[in-house]
Amino acid sequence: MGFFSRDIKTLNDLFIHSLGAIYYAEKKIAKALPDMVDKASDNGLKDGFERHCDQTEVHIERLEKAFEMLGAEARTAGCPAIDGILDEADEISGDIDDDMVMDVALIAAAQAVEHYEITCYGTLVAWARELGRADCAELLEETLAEEKAADHNLTNLAERRINLKSAA
Amino acid sequence: MGFFSRDIKTLNDLFIHSLGAIYYAEKKIAKALPDMVDKASDNGLKDGFERHCDQTEVHIERLEKAFEMLGAEARTAGCPAIDGILDEADEISGDIDDDMVMDVALIAAAQAVEHYEITCYGTLVAWARELGRADCAELLEETLAEEKAADHNLTNLAERRINLKSAA
Repeated sequence: MGFFSRDIKTLNDLFIHSLGAIYYAEKKIAKALPDMVDKASDNGLKDGFERHCDQTEVHIERLEKAFEMLGAEARTAGCPAIDGILDEADEISGDIDDDMVMDVALIAAAQAVEHYEITCYGTLVAWARELGRADCAELLEETLAEEKAADHNLTNLAERRINLKSAA
Repeated sequence: MGFFSRDIKTLNDLFIHSLGAIYYAEKKIAKALPDMVDKASDNGLKDGFERHCDQTEVHIERLEKAFEMLGAEARTAGCPAIDGILDEADEISGDIDDDMVMDVALIAAAQAVEHYEITCYGTLVAWARELGRADCAELLEETLAEEKAADHNLTNLAERRINLKSAA
């Protein structure tokens, strides 16, 4: 987007565009997660990434359902934000050799992804309500709750790792 | 970063690198905010962006103080995540004509920035504590609290705008 300017005229246009951006983001996250599983050493972290990979497929299906509810075509829109967040995760992990430091960096990168998704879905839920689409809002709220839970699990994993290290 | 691989060997290296990335991000945000002030129509939103611009300068100074505390040179590291988040804000605002839709999009973009900063500072505070640097952790916690307050203010502005529209 950005090539044909001034094509977002209403909040509904902005909503559909932003659904397309998170649709792109979820698809890109689904592709990035197997690499994060490979790079992680901690089994809890590996399992967490694997579970989130399955969950991401459900989030993609929910977005397709939301497009359908709105009578719009499910179409991705560019999302430079998620491109940048994932590029950063990729670059930094290329600079790390140590397994413990890698796990810590992966947790931080995954939390940046979760926070981005939390802000996107939070915004989309508010806009859906404003547009009188409680059905879409409820659907997207399910994903929002799962992204918040994933972020919470990552915090727990980070703390557990610190505790294990202290006990060693 | 990313050009000379395997140069992050310890959590301390990762911490210093990540301080450099948020240092870059804060400087880039300080440059982007005046444009967001210009694009906003709602006076509360304009004021909020102006206040956050002043606050961002304080955040930059705090990061310089953190580098000094650690005996490290204050040096920016690349941060593709913030580049992407700000590029997305810029692209989408180029597609919008209507003042109300623009304000809504600007609030969403600013919340994406705040959430990214919240996750970065949250991570840095945890790492500083793990590294036994409570002094750095306390300094960065001040910024973390301000970023959370800024995000909260943006949510209030979004809700106020909705209420004003409903009352119209």
